[in-house]
Amino acid sequence: MPAEPLQLAIVGLGNVGTGVAKILTEHPERILQRAGRPIEIRRAVVRDLNKSRDVTLPAGVLTNDIESVIRDPNIHVAVELMGGIHPAREVMLRLLEAGKDIVTANKALLCEHGDEIFECARKHKRTICFEAAVAGGIPIIAAVGQSMAANQIIGIQAILNGTTNYILSEMLLRGQSYGEALQQAQDLGYAEADPTLDVNGTDAGQKLGILAQLAFGVKVKSSEFHVSGIDKLERTDIQHAKDLGYTIKLLARVSLNKGRLEMSVRPTLIRADRPLAQVHGPFNAILLDGDVVGNVWYSGRGAGQLPTASAVTADIIDLAIGRAQLTFAHLDLWRETPPFALAPLNESTSRYFLRLSVEDRPNVLAEVTGVLGRNGISLSTIIQPEAPEVDATAGAIPTVPLIIMTHRTSAGSLAAAERDLDRLASVRSPRMVLAVAD
Amino acid sequence: MPAEPLQLAIVGLGNVGTGVAKILTEHPERILQRAGRPIEIRRAVVRDLNKSRDVTLPAGVLTNDIESVIRDPNIHVAVELMGGIHPAREVMLRLLEAGKDIVTANKALLCEHGDEIFECARKHKRTICFEAAVAGGIPIIAAVGQSMAANQIIGIQAILNGTTNYILSEMLLRGQSYGEALQQAQDLGYAEADPTLDVNGTDAGQKLGILAQLAFGVKVKSSEFHVSGIDKLERTDIQHAKDLGYTIKLLARVSLNKGRLEMSVRPTLIRADRPLAQVHGPFNAILLDGDVVGNVWYSGRGAGQLPTASAVTADIIDLAIGRAQLTFAHLDLWRETPPFALAPLNESTSRYFLRLSVEDRPNVLAEVTGVLGRNGISLSTIIQPEAPEVDATAGAIPTVPLIIMTHRTSAGSLAAAERDLDRLASVRSPRMVLAVAD
Repeated sequence: MPAEPLQLAIVGLGNVGTGVAKILTEHPERILQRAGRPIEIRRAVVRDLNKSRDVTLPAGVLTNDIESVIRDPNIHVAVELMGGIHPAREVMLRLLEAGKDIVTANKALLCEHGDEIFECARKHKRTICFEAAVAGGIPIIAAVGQSMAANQIIGIQAILNGTTNYILSEMLLRGQSYGEALQQAQDLGYAEADPTLDVNGTDAGQKLGILAQLAFGVKVKSSEFHVSGIDKLERTDIQHAKDLGYTIKLLARVSLNKGRLEMSVRPTLIRADRPLAQVHGPFNAILLDGDVVGNVWYSGRGAGQLPTASAVTADIIDLAIGRAQLTFAHLDLWRETPPFALAPLNESTSRYFLRLSVEDRPNVLAEVTGVLGRNGISLSTIIQPEAPEVDATAGAIPTVPLIIMTHRTSAGSLAAAERDLDRLASVRSPRMVLAVAD
Repeated sequence: MPAEPLQLAIVGLGNVGTGVAKILTEHPERILQRAGRPIEIRRAVVRDLNKSRDVTLPAGVLTNDIESVIRDPNIHVAVELMGGIHPAREVMLRLLEAGKDIVTANKALLCEHGDEIFECARKHKRTICFEAAVAGGIPIIAAVGQSMAANQIIGIQAILNGTTNYILSEMLLRGQSYGEALQQAQDLGYAEADPTLDVNGTDAGQKLGILAQLAFGVKVKSSEFHVSGIDKLERTDIQHAKDLGYTIKLLARVSLNKGRLEMSVRPTLIRADRPLAQVHGPFNAILLDGDVVGNVWYSGRGAGQLPTASAVTADIIDLAIGRAQLTFAHLDLWRETPPFALAPLNESTSRYFLRLSVEDRPNVLAEVTGVLGRNGISLSTIIQPEAPEVDATAGAIPTVPLIIMTHRTSAGSLAAAERDLDRLASVRSPRMVLAVAD
């Protein structure tokens, strides 16, 4: 006698939702064999019933009424793929209260409102699965939450946003400008019409927030650590980094250092021979460092219809088996008393790359290096490239670029030095300051 | 009120067993938090009670009597780390019959006797966990068995033996001979005193057998597919491959092609710019290709005390949570009616690299290419390096090396061509024939 089917609702039938519906409807035997029971789509909630869709669902499944899901006691699982925070937050809370387990790819919601959402799930004895929220087709949530169970994770370094990695790769490998590479990413569907949340680092920051919560049991919203994007980078930065033997990546990083967490998402110079520097195109990659296992490396497609739908479907199967419920109950999420605290931003340390625009006259180099020295920052490299910059302003003193790589220093010392540089008439704005990975 | 402790026995307190004992005894709070209950080592079964050990266990835990485990109804989990097939097979069957769940790193036993062992486990409603049996610290069993659940896996390409990968890396990067690199691997503890099972491909073959069973539901013993090792490779092969833009790796590969599986472990030329070609040192790497998710890549330490113990401990925690029991019940292992069959060996296709030693006289090239042509094998590259080989035999015709890369051909055609080459007086033995990856 076959087991009871698992009945689910897909809330949001966009790109990923359509992918999930296709997998479930096109491979019923595979799903039955893996899950031990059939999985049926009982409802798919959409905004526009008349829109043409790339998947065929039985009559009566498509609805624009979320209440038909909330009220239906036969629906045990809701797959939330609306994205964004509102109304996804309110919908998810109501679904949990109505007794539905949740599968979601919503990184923004989990990062910014994880405490409330997870508390609600626990209160109603429900499970939330979110493998698809971070790094799409890479099973990093399972890796951190299950496979690393013998370890205290001590570091995560990752490329978590495929859009920006594609743009940076095009800038590096084809010499494109930021604007050209962004346009191409949009043409190819790797970037959205409004790419803000990708290019300013928010998307990667939210994903890192979820990983940090899973690995370290801390509540960290993306406003509480350093998040910056790639939208200010110029071709010249990519080129200077390359000349120095580095590749610029939007690096998401969290590490445990003397009981405190240092955490950031920012464009970072990575030595060109390191694996993370060699991940090109719209891919994600994650390097986990566990205190027992050492380094384990993952890479694959971090976004896109089918990779993300693959992760969502694995979560649905886990719920059908009953495994997800056990996993969720044992995850180290959003603890009341977090075992670790974030290091104060000013105390986090890094090496830095500085690109300054300085007046081309005697003594400027001494002024700049004097400022850095007085702030306790020592230099590893200083380069003044031969070609002077052209300054279009008639009569102005011409400027030249100055490239500086520092040894490890604190963010506080760097900020103090930046304030002092602001006071030097010989140093022009804007300057570019980038972190350099060890 | 704390939950009941999980009581376990470690059977075999060698390198990995000691690592597991250290993790469990040195991090009780971590284990309690992850597993939701304490995990206690009630027995550790060893051959020699008097041997000094790198871990301190409470009095009465160490025993040389396996019966004390089998008879003890309070021991629910046995961690089998004896290795090898006998007496591990008999011990594991008795442990299962006595109602113990099993955690094991024993790839040989699972590959060669998986059908019997798993049947016994099912009969006694027991669970076998074997994350540590393949690729040590890389959670590839969880990836294939759980995270890829929405996918039909269509291909696996992997480096599954760290010893041979270390040797090949040293031969490539430092120009060492096979013998020198093997000696160094032994000095560093990467190779055992008797390295036979590593260097002849058996170890990687057994691991690939387990992965194939998990991914494709087939029973394949390592004698049923092509397994060869690196012990015949010469420095000159590494160098010729490098000159052609390739790196030689011991590649474990299984792919699904028109419903049939092609499977092999053999030294293989991989284009030097491919990620698998760039995995150097004692590491493992695995590229999974799923029909939904596309390629997902894993790498990390495939052996060693702590990486393997990390995987064993994660399995123990999974059993303590109850998740492993659900996973095992749903795995697609050793099906009665396998959905796929192995392609006949002769029909599997590949490109090939041939290094021949031929007489340095007119017409030899025409004879060799004639043999290949008559067997339907077309060539992509043919190189006769300038320096002739020295033949020490007085009066003998001097020989020169001849390097040939073929286009894709069947193993059957290649074997026929090899038989014909054997009949040519101008071609000397031995020759080197290696696969070339696409």
